[in-house]
Order: sequence, then C-alpha cells, then structure tokens
Amino acid sequence: MDKTQKRMTLIVFSNDMDKAMAAFILATGAASSGMQVTMYFTFWGLTLLRKRNYFRRGKTLVERMFGWILPEGPEGARLSKLNFLGAGTSVMKSVIKKKKLPRLEDLTNMASSLDVKIVACTTSMEMMGIKPEELIDDIEIGGVATYLGEARKSAVNLFI
Amino acid sequence: MDKTQKRMTLIVFSNDMDKAMAAFILATGAASSGMQVTMYFTFWGLTLLRKRNYFRRGKTLVERMFGWILPEGPEGARLSKLNFLGAGTSVMKSVIKKKKLPRLEDLTNMASSLDVKIVACTTSMEMMGIKPEELIDDIEIGGVATYLGEARKSAVNLFI
Amino acid sequence: MDKTQKRMTLIVFSNDMDKAMAAFILATGAASSGMQVTMYFTFWGLTLLRKRNYFRRGKTLVERMFGWILPEGPEGARLSKLNFLGAGTSVMKSVIKKKKLPRLEDLTNMASSLDVKIVACTTSMEMMGIKPEELIDDIEIGGVATYLGEARKSAVNLFI
Repeated sequence: MDKTQKRMTLIVFSNDMDKAMAAFILATGAASSGMQVTMYFTFWGLTLLRKRNYFRRGKTLVERMFGWILPEGPEGARLSKLNFLGAGTSVMKSVIKKKKLPRLEDLTNMASSLDVKIVACTTSMEMMGIKPEELIDDIEIGGVATYLGEARKSAVNLFI
Repeated sequence: MDKTQKRMTLIVFSNDMDKAMAAFILATGAASSGMQVTMYFTFWGLTLLRKRNYFRRGKTLVERMFGWILPEGPEGARLSKLNFLGAGTSVMKSVIKKKKLPRLEDLTNMASSLDVKIVACTTSMEMMGIKPEELIDDIEIGGVATYLGEARKSAVNLFI
Repeated sequence: MDKTQKRMTLIVFSNDMDKAMAAFILATGAASSGMQVTMYFTFWGLTLLRKRNYFRRGKTLVERMFGWILPEGPEGARLSKLNFLGAGTSVMKSVIKKKKLPRLEDLTNMASSLDVKIVACTTSMEMMGIKPEELIDDIEIGGVATYLGEARKSAVNLFI
C-alpha cells in the first residue's frame, strides 16, 4: 500500500442505527487491517457522541429542546426503515444479540481501542447548542478544513 | 487513465428505487466507459439481490418475518420520497416507461452484461438470515475486507 | 498538493435542507482553500436549482404535477428528520439566523462566487420534465460521463 491507500475518512451525517453500524463496521474493519481512519461526526451524526443524561445549565429554550428530542449516544439510535415506533429496532437489537454480532455500542468502543480518530464538527455543535463537555471523552473538535485536510490524503472517503 | 482511475466501487446500502437507480446508472455508465466497477450490496441494499418468491425452510420466526416484510429484488423497490403508499412510485415507473428510460430491472441486467462485479455483504446476510441460494446467481459474497481491498485501489468510491 | 488532491466532486442527490447545507458547506470550504469543486445535482437534488414561481407551458399533466409538488430552490428545502410538518425546519432556520450562520440560500450564492462548478443531471431533467430555462443561470448540464470524467481526477468524491 502506498501512503494514500492507508487512509480512510467517513463523514457520519446520519444517526440512524443501521447507517451508524455500517460506518463503524467499515471503520473498525479498515483500522484492523492497518489503515488510519478518521470519522467526522456532523449534524444528526453528532448525537452518536453525546453522553447519556448529561444536563447542562445556561442553555436557551431551543437548545434544551434539541437536548430532549435528539438521541443520546449509540443506545438511542433507531433504524432508518421498519422502525415501527421502535419495535423494528428492538427486533434488530435482539437478532444482533442472539447471533452474537457486535452491538453499536461495542463497535464504538472497538473503534476507540483501534485508534480510529473521532472528530466532532464545530458548526454542527454551534447549530445545536452542544458544548464539548456534553460529548464523550478523547475526541477532537474540528471544522470542514480539518476534514478536508484528512480527506485529500485518503484513498477512501465516504458520506454516510 | 492510470490504474487507479480505472476503478470505481459503490456501497449500495439503500434499497430505495431512486437511490438504486442512481447506483446502477453510475455503475453502467462507468463500465461502458471502460472502468472496472464493484457494487457492494449491504443492509437494505441486499434486498435488491433477492430472488422473487423464493421460499426457504428452516428459518427462525424473525428471519421469516424479515422475508415477508423486505422487498424482493428491484421490482419491489419504492421511492424514498413522495411514495404516497406506492402511488408516487407507480407514477415514476409509468414516466420511465413512457420516456423509454431504462427501468431498474433493465439497469440490473445491463450491469451484469457489462461485467460489473456484484458482491453481497456477509454480515448483512447473517443479520437478516438470508442464505446464498436466496440471492440472484453469478454474484460474489464477501465481507468488509473484500470491499476495502477494492476501494483502496479505486479512484471513485461512493456510499449510496 | 498534487493535481488530484486539488479536486472534489459532490453528487447532490438529496434536497433535504440538512444534507444540502452539508454539501454546500463542504463545497464552499474546499473552494475557499483553493480546491476545484464540482457539484452534480441529480434526482431530488435537482430541485435545489429550480427558479421560484417559474411557469412553463406545454407540460404534460404528470410534469405539471411534479412542478407543483417538488420544492423550488433552496428556500423550499425541509429537514430530513424532525420536520414536524415544517415546524422543525422553521426552528432550525430561526436558530441559523440568530447564531448568524449562513443560510442555505447564502451558501448557494457563496458557491457561485467561489467558482464552484454546478452541473444539472440530464437524465433527472428528462425524468421530471424539467427544462434548462426552469433552472438557475450559469450552470452546466451534463450526464453521467461528465460526472465520471471529473470524479476520476478528484481526491474526494462524495454522494450526498
């Protein structure tokens, strides 16, 4: 592999459980095979990085509203299709458990232990009124320039 | 064109009719111009490769449920927007017919005849309980490593 | 940067407000940093290029129906999630205004002034019965070969 072929970036725009799983399976698969992977979490995808039950004072009404409505972390993710008010998502979760496939939470932890670089998008944080302390630890924060700097050097760039 | 510029990979995650059409139009366009194209069908996209009315014994209840609910092949695909319980999809299909544009089924066949490589994702097959014999013929089966091996050598990689 | 690293292409398939914003933020960010950016608008994304209140004679009933139902330009775009019949989209727009972030319309204009190349997909225009004069000025019209020619030479290619 030449230098470029060793890198992959994923923009994680969606917080759907199925798309998030696809993103983390790609990221952990690539990292296991020796690639340097950067996951850039933006817009709805940013909610996958939220800590659970984190309460922050001094938010505006709209920011608190976003806080209540948006899911917290990978456990809050739902299927993009066949969700059926949560029933489809529950069935899928039980299938994953029964077949001993990794859960979304497991994949997230696996990514960290494989040194996948996690970046939270600054513009999205500002838009939704999310502060750094509300997000999981050991991540970076960066804008579109950070993403592009990585993507230009990567063989595989996907928007999920 | 150098070697890398001759290759394209598409992850087909969605089974929406509109997105599937976009994927096959890209794939057949690229293959016609001499590029080597790999389409990697995962999650909902996997249902685009299902044979019609295929019945397999020995499935669990949940697997049979997936079998009933999930569409079978390209004919079962629906628009991602303006579906209106199928009415929008029917209108779009009649427009395609009237204007003599290729149907999704035609594009699928065209892809095969242009030697587009079709790969079904092993993890998705396991998750949904879909066996190789339920999928259309002359395709490969592979995991994320298969995809990444191809993508690293390709100039154009998209997630659809 | 070598030659390839200076180029990016974005297929804008979606007309969701959130995805369109992501596309234009990426495009304007890349163009500001000296990259050559091509945005290829296809399927629903094509509606982002429509002029407002443009009436054209001689359309079929179905084409006129598309004209009524499909949004006109960036102002008509809606959130892909939490839209709540438009309420979520209005809240997001007021947040963007309050925080002085660029609106989708501003980003579109910024892209033009930064010489981002805008291409409308011929197949989608034919499918939806949209004529060149219904689209905003100073754009190109092209098919899948136009897109692939650009994408093969680009370091970053995304499907949004």
